[in-house]
Amino acid sequence: MAKAKTNPGRFFEDYTLGEVIHHAVPRTVSGGERALYHALYPARHALYSSDDFARGCGLPASPLDDIAAFHVVFGKTVPDISLNALANLGYAEGRWRKPVWPGDTLRATSEVIGVKQNSNGKSGVVWVRTRGMNQRDEVVIEYCRWAMVRKREPESPAPETVIPELKPALDPGDLVIPEGLDFSDYDFTLAGEPHALGDYAVGEVIDHVDGVTVEEAEHMMATRLWQNTAKVHFDASLREDGKRLIYGGHVISLARALSFNGLANAQVVAGLNGGAHANPCFAGDTVKAWSEVLDKAETGVPGIGALRLRLVAIKGGAPFELKGPDGKYLGHVLLDLDYWALMPM
Amino acid sequence: MAKAKTNPGRFFEDYTLGEVIHHAVPRTVSGGERALYHALYPARHALYSSDDFARGCGLPASPLDDIAAFHVVFGKTVPDISLNALANLGYAEGRWRKPVWPGDTLRATSEVIGVKQNSNGKSGVVWVRTRGMNQRDEVVIEYCRWAMVRKREPESPAPETVIPELKPALDPGDLVIPEGLDFSDYDFTLAGEPHALGDYAVGEVIDHVDGVTVEEAEHMMATRLWQNTAKVHFDASLREDGKRLIYGGHVISLARALSFNGLANAQVVAGLNGGAHANPCFAGDTVKAWSEVLDKAETGVPGIGALRLRLVAIKGGAPFELKGPDGKYLGHVLLDLDYWALMPM
Amino acid sequence: MAKAKTNPGRFFEDYTLGEVIHHAVPRTVSGGERALYHALYPARHALYSSDDFARGCGLPASPLDDIAAFHVVFGKTVPDISLNALANLGYAEGRWRKPVWPGDTLRATSEVIGVKQNSNGKSGVVWVRTRGMNQRDEVVIEYCRWAMVRKREPESPAPETVIPELKPALDPGDLVIPEGLDFSDYDFTLAGEPHALGDYAVGEVIDHVDGVTVEEAEHMMATRLWQNTAKVHFDASLREDGKRLIYGGHVISLARALSFNGLANAQVVAGLNGGAHANPCFAGDTVKAWSEVLDKAETGVPGIGALRLRLVAIKGGAPFELKGPDGKYLGHVLLDLDYWALMPM
Repeated sequence: MAKAKTNPGRFFEDYTLGEVIHHAVPRTVSGGERALYHALYPARHALYSSDDFARGCGLPASPLDDIAAFHVVFGKTVPDISLNALANLGYAEGRWRKPVWPGDTLRATSEVIGVKQNSNGKSGVVWVRTRGMNQRDEVVIEYCRWAMVRKREPESPAPETVIPELKPALDPGDLVIPEGLDFSDYDFTLAGEPHALGDYAVGEVIDHVDGVTVEEAEHMMATRLWQNTAKVHFDASLREDGKRLIYGGHVISLARALSFNGLANAQVVAGLNGGAHANPCFAGDTVKAWSEVLDKAETGVPGIGALRLRLVAIKGGAPFELKGPDGKYLGHVLLDLDYWALMPM
Repeated sequence: MAKAKTNPGRFFEDYTLGEVIHHAVPRTVSGGERALYHALYPARHALYSSDDFARGCGLPASPLDDIAAFHVVFGKTVPDISLNALANLGYAEGRWRKPVWPGDTLRATSEVIGVKQNSNGKSGVVWVRTRGMNQRDEVVIEYCRWAMVRKREPESPAPETVIPELKPALDPGDLVIPEGLDFSDYDFTLAGEPHALGDYAVGEVIDHVDGVTVEEAEHMMATRLWQNTAKVHFDASLREDGKRLIYGGHVISLARALSFNGLANAQVVAGLNGGAHANPCFAGDTVKAWSEVLDKAETGVPGIGALRLRLVAIKGGAPFELKGPDGKYLGHVLLDLDYWALMPM
Repeated sequence: MAKAKTNPGRFFEDYTLGEVIHHAVPRTVSGGERALYHALYPARHALYSSDDFARGCGLPASPLDDIAAFHVVFGKTVPDISLNALANLGYAEGRWRKPVWPGDTLRATSEVIGVKQNSNGKSGVVWVRTRGMNQRDEVVIEYCRWAMVRKREPESPAPETVIPELKPALDPGDLVIPEGLDFSDYDFTLAGEPHALGDYAVGEVIDHVDGVTVEEAEHMMATRLWQNTAKVHFDASLREDGKRLIYGGHVISLARALSFNGLANAQVVAGLNGGAHANPCFAGDTVKAWSEVLDKAETGVPGIGALRLRLVAIKGGAPFELKGPDGKYLGHVLLDLDYWALMPM
């Protein structure tokens, strides 16, 4: 009786190919979320800091930071997707399709696009395509992610294996340019750096220099703000070492914000090609970041270029080192994210 | 001279039966307070998370969380009521009479409704009825509380003892249903759980499962946000153990937010029957919560039911245990709150 | 290549007399910033807490706290002025010229008004006059500050020494009274104290009594909110003792907020005459504050007086002690600020 009312989360058996899960707790964002985002991360990209700058770029106002929009949508999915997850394995085909404005209400759905039981019979991998919608039912963001989820009962039969075909990276043509975005009067001085798309070379690496030592109160406030309910982020009594595992998205936001220093004009996050949370992050870690230019492209809109970046967050250690001779991530690497940003050409 | 300008707080002698104290520092709330509330607590009740969901329930927008409204009003009273309090003894007859909207400005008054000097002659109990008003002078919340307050001088004469008659619990008919509230199109999927009033049984207990380890920065930010000035929450040099006592309201908000898991549809806090801060809470404590259904009732509005709940916050220990054989609260019990919530029938 | 894109900050040689530096990253403020300011500091001045109270004082709404406006503007200047600063030496001629309203976008410029190479040839002092502008290009705040900045190369030639003439204190006539401000219907009860300008005497000292023990998460959130990028505030790996130096402005805001207790009616910060960050502040310090009335004056507007105050923040130690027999600040003094406040006469 006592436990009947609470949500135990889904187990591997509970996912059916093609099923669409409607996630709970829609969320209205406001200037409060923008202010908190700037208090929690050293975010400085001008398009998300200034309504005036955004209007100079053809937008009606400054949208919610793209990564914040991602967190809101991701947070909705946690109770249904990752409450019993053993590992968050990957992301693909993430696209920001509409800016999120103060006053917008976001909700989310996830479609099960793949299932594969592990050979040990105790768990399986679930692939979902998650969509975040605003109050006008417009998709504002969509992405695929896959996670390893515990089975409720090891004896339950394995489903037919279906592994979705996912693009290793989005094509520049897949990216959605926010309606009205126009960099023809772009103010490089106010934006903070002079570098346009043409100033970046494929293969170039950038050390973003600054570091942030992370505190418990900060990552918990951030993770709660996105209504992410995963217990490991909040309850210090769950692990033997008394540590709280920091939400991987907190590291994404930290790294993206730090990347301002060298990528101030990579204003809009438009595509998420992939990402790995290479090692866990804990309070007390000092997080730094570096980037590598993976690709660059024109978009369909004159003056707006796309830069494909590898964004790496590290704790200690040297920049520009990613994996050891065994092909595994080095111990100081926290995040390896592959994304497309839009910037002036 | 040096001390003449500051407020030393009131002592027991300073309260006169029937006196109405006008509390200082009115406060305008906005989307910023909503965002912070969601950053500080794992709040997920959809009516307070989504303007869109609130409109689907007949309201013009999402109101400020009811407990947040309580905190704002309570905070105003601290400099006049509890600055020299030795203990916060109880609450009764708390009623939320109007939702608080972003842009509203709250102020508060307290009427002295009871005084009783303690037999030791050094302190006394003061009962007040506090009212929070918006900028249209509408009462948005009212409640009684009583506290033990130091006397300035032990020799000063005792006032005539007056102990107010307070209801042990509000009748369902005492509850005010927010104007326009209508659950006829209630979306249980978006709200997060399928349970309506009829699914709960009197005597049923619910373990809300999740836990939050509390940090100093969090409870201080919360307590300051409500402009609660009680020194013990902020100044680590006041206690010999160097600990800061966490504002009891912080624990109320934590427990109420955690109760989403099992009580997701108990959307509106409409009545406060009573409450005890059983033991102090300190940073580092991991707070969990459980509830017991005390009563259920219809309201005057079709489709809207009232659930009377005991909400218990604990640190460590097992759920569903409250008091020892001596009738005293067990050491791991932080809060024992008795309230009425409104939910779909 | 790797370092070419990031901003190394300016060195002493990079400042030319008369040059105007346009600082990057404009910033729109909203109710979110107001809420966060109240969560981070025990701010209670009614004019900045309540739209309703502000309207009663002739303003259209509650402006952003004056010190918060200062922080936003100051934060913009850090990447260009103080990234390679060895010390922040002083402030002068600070004037708040327009209130900042929710929705306003602030940007900043700094004019180099003085340069003087130090005798050691390794560094120099740079004086700048910084102006913060809103989206209508109106100056909302201006102030001078000077900092000691490293030279890039010790051999580079010294510039001609120019030391600007700065007023030791603003005249009352220099202060700008916010348009419409009118204290004729001022509500002393709602403001929290009965003391008007006439109740303060030059030479009077006030112990503000309350203390706040500072946490890492709080000062970092505050400092980030103002987009202040100075590394020492965030990166615990930079100092041998593993401490993060707290942004001096955090201490200013703490002290000003604490000064409510005794100076509740000193509503508007209108002028900054000078200030010294006497000793560093670290997490764990318990900050208290005291004030000394330095001067009082009428303004051009009937009913609005100006109070010149010394605001001192301390950690431990006794109030009202500032300097030792050697003329140096005592070790427990954090801040010595000289400002003009506007209040009812």
